[in-house]
Amino acid sequence: MTVYPAKQHFAAVAAHLGASSGVILVNGGETLIHPDSDTEYIFHQDSNFYYLSGIAEPSFAAAYDISTRTAILFVPHVSADEAVWVGVPPSLEEYRVAHGFDAAHYTNEVDAVVSSLKANEVFKLPESDKLRKAVHEARVFKDDCEIAIMRRANQISSAAHTTLMKEAKLGMNEAELRGRFVGLVLAQGCSYEAYGSIVAGGRNAAVLHYTKNNMALGADDVVLVDAGGTYGNYASDITRTWPVGPRFSDKAREIYAIVLDMQKAVISACAPHKQWEDMHALAARVAAEGLLRLGMLTGDLESIVENFVVGYFMPHGIGHLIGIDTHDVGGYPAGTERIDKPGLRYLRARRELLPRMAFTVEPGLYFVDAILAEAKATPAVAQHINFDVVASYRSVGGVRIEDNIVITESGNENLTSECPKEIADIEALRASAYNQ
Amino acid sequence: MTVYPAKQHFAAVAAHLGASSGVILVNGGETLIHPDSDTEYIFHQDSNFYYLSGIAEPSFAAAYDISTRTAILFVPHVSADEAVWVGVPPSLEEYRVAHGFDAAHYTNEVDAVVSSLKANEVFKLPESDKLRKAVHEARVFKDDCEIAIMRRANQISSAAHTTLMKEAKLGMNEAELRGRFVGLVLAQGCSYEAYGSIVAGGRNAAVLHYTKNNMALGADDVVLVDAGGTYGNYASDITRTWPVGPRFSDKAREIYAIVLDMQKAVISACAPHKQWEDMHALAARVAAEGLLRLGMLTGDLESIVENFVVGYFMPHGIGHLIGIDTHDVGGYPAGTERIDKPGLRYLRARRELLPRMAFTVEPGLYFVDAILAEAKATPAVAQHINFDVVASYRSVGGVRIEDNIVITESGNENLTSECPKEIADIEALRASAYNQ
Ligand SMILES: [Mn+2]
Ligand SMILES: [Mn+2]
Repeated sequence: MTVYPAKQHFAAVAAHLGASSGVILVNGGETLIHPDSDTEYIFHQDSNFYYLSGIAEPSFAAAYDISTRTAILFVPHVSADEAVWVGVPPSLEEYRVAHGFDAAHYTNEVDAVVSSLKANEVFKLPESDKLRKAVHEARVFKDDCEIAIMRRANQISSAAHTTLMKEAKLGMNEAELRGRFVGLVLAQGCSYEAYGSIVAGGRNAAVLHYTKNNMALGADDVVLVDAGGTYGNYASDITRTWPVGPRFSDKAREIYAIVLDMQKAVISACAPHKQWEDMHALAARVAAEGLLRLGMLTGDLESIVENFVVGYFMPHGIGHLIGIDTHDVGGYPAGTERIDKPGLRYLRARRELLPRMAFTVEPGLYFVDAILAEAKATPAVAQHINFDVVASYRSVGGVRIEDNIVITESGNENLTSECPKEIADIEALRASAYNQ
Repeated sequence: MTVYPAKQHFAAVAAHLGASSGVILVNGGETLIHPDSDTEYIFHQDSNFYYLSGIAEPSFAAAYDISTRTAILFVPHVSADEAVWVGVPPSLEEYRVAHGFDAAHYTNEVDAVVSSLKANEVFKLPESDKLRKAVHEARVFKDDCEIAIMRRANQISSAAHTTLMKEAKLGMNEAELRGRFVGLVLAQGCSYEAYGSIVAGGRNAAVLHYTKNNMALGADDVVLVDAGGTYGNYASDITRTWPVGPRFSDKAREIYAIVLDMQKAVISACAPHKQWEDMHALAARVAAEGLLRLGMLTGDLESIVENFVVGYFMPHGIGHLIGIDTHDVGGYPAGTERIDKPGLRYLRARRELLPRMAFTVEPGLYFVDAILAEAKATPAVAQHINFDVVASYRSVGGVRIEDNIVITESGNENLTSECPKEIADIEALRASAYNQ
């Protein structure tokens, strides 16, 4: 098994810190307990600590001496009494080797060991904002080990999405789909859902952060499934939208085809030195063209673009950085501000694409009553919308297609390539669900 | 749908408080976010708040005016902008009716509303220890609505355990069983695992809190599955132990039969006015008799009992109160102390059984090297153990059988009655797994 490159990550952080000496010291997360109870939350490691240790268990710490390039792991001591309940843990040396550190001590020695390094400066999280920024910037660029883990997270989650498309039947509840998804990714070694899954049938997809997931699927509906497992502490974040019946309705198919065009245009365009906000604009332009063809939008394309009309149908951003966190760090480097325009105001990143950055590409089109009412009340926008045509698509609720990509030297790698999204492939899966 | 009896719970708490006036004020839990991230933990409601509100969502509060018996719900306000993302919430009146309150306001009115009640005393959680004790004592006694919810939690989890026994095959990984279990209970409407599931094949069952759940199942092993779903905010906590192959090995069958005897003896004995520590002692006595028959123990039964020899094979207690929390509150009423003896020292309750108390009954026998070494080093204990015979059972790892019961007027109701535990029933399920 490859050793997670924790020490290399310390070196990358030191480089971003711009320090040639000093000690970096980070503490791992502690187990969270429900208040007034002994029930533990399922442990989620602190993301910055995971990046610098590859340790998924609670109560560890890690340090790095910048000048001597020495990485030191601190392991919580397990007493003989505790070992009866939790098992005999690996030795210090076993931990050191397994995680690629230069030394290992118990956590009660943190102060003594760090003192012995006689550092001119100790950078600590969360105290040091400078260190935090350096860790964030290092985390933006994924190394081969991280990309391999993310590829696996995507494979597992893609397979689970595919199984849902192959198995879901009319009359099923959204909860059954979510349960099946979670069960499948846990069974394949994921630790947990990377985020609260969204399983939204019909109009529920017009609730952008729908997490109730408790309604029966309707025969004429599409269902939007936004779900991903966390594998090896790296998130996957995948959305597929598909008909509950064996085929898309005409209206759903038309919207789906536009969203797929938006996604393909953006994925084709993602390459070094592009700007992420331009990817958002590209998706909006492709959507505008598609919605013009449907007659849902009217008038001049450039005026539609200038008035951010598509922002009323895709209120969220085109995607976000992804890594240890689903919404990963580093989207807005110091000095970059959000753009306060429909759609763009929720864009989670604005920066130049560079190799080894990982993004989600997740265009969508939704028919949200409250947002459409706002559009109607905004003359510059309303002039471009045929609300009767909009009404005829309202039952579609919403469509989103989301893949995870990594920028390469020449373009990008789609980590979600194993999850079907072509209309014909989806309909073949859905037909097989009904022909079993 | 039955309204969760939140108001009656307030009245029960007021009775335990012994106050005829004053206001009880409790806050619900808030969403937890991972540090330095926007990832939310899956929300778990504060248990005391759920008992007094029946509200499973974050950021609510509730109050009760003791003298006028008025229950007031406080609802977080959702702005129009937020509603676009999370959906349009129920109205105050809809919330009030759905949860059986007398009044409903937004949470920004808590101070004003509580002031307007002109209470001589306001009891608050977590500040008031007196209130906390009263809530705990009220929670010990489950009403019909709570018992119905717990029955359903047990049915769902029993069905999932049964499916595992029917499906698991040699070569599967513990993670696959855990994933399948979680998927099944979520699909049936559970919110989450009630606790970190234990899926422990072979010797892993000798690690009492084994949660790695990542090993392949071995052909000659039994697998111990301790898993339960939380349904309607009430926990279920069920353990089954069964052979990976179609039949128990002779050694595993012998141990299993003793544990089943222990459990049946205790469940038969559970009735009003018994003491919980006597249930533990009964299990230990039945175990001693069984292990004497196997020749694993030797000598006088009374001496075995007096020296707590069985505590070296069952280091944990016979069970615990269960309800909103898996290890529910109220096990040690004020003035009751733990008994510092093997097995008993981890007993989670010591009190008189009374109708409407809910307990787990979870006898087990384990072969834990470190504990057996301790037994060997303790002459009064070692004299009663044939360690050669122990060694011949070591590969069994551990066996536990756990049901959830509610004390009734005449005895108890077994909520886990739908989950097979007889050897013949288990072997029939296991055989069907291999005959598919
Ligand atoms: Mn996403
Ligand atoms: Mn238990």
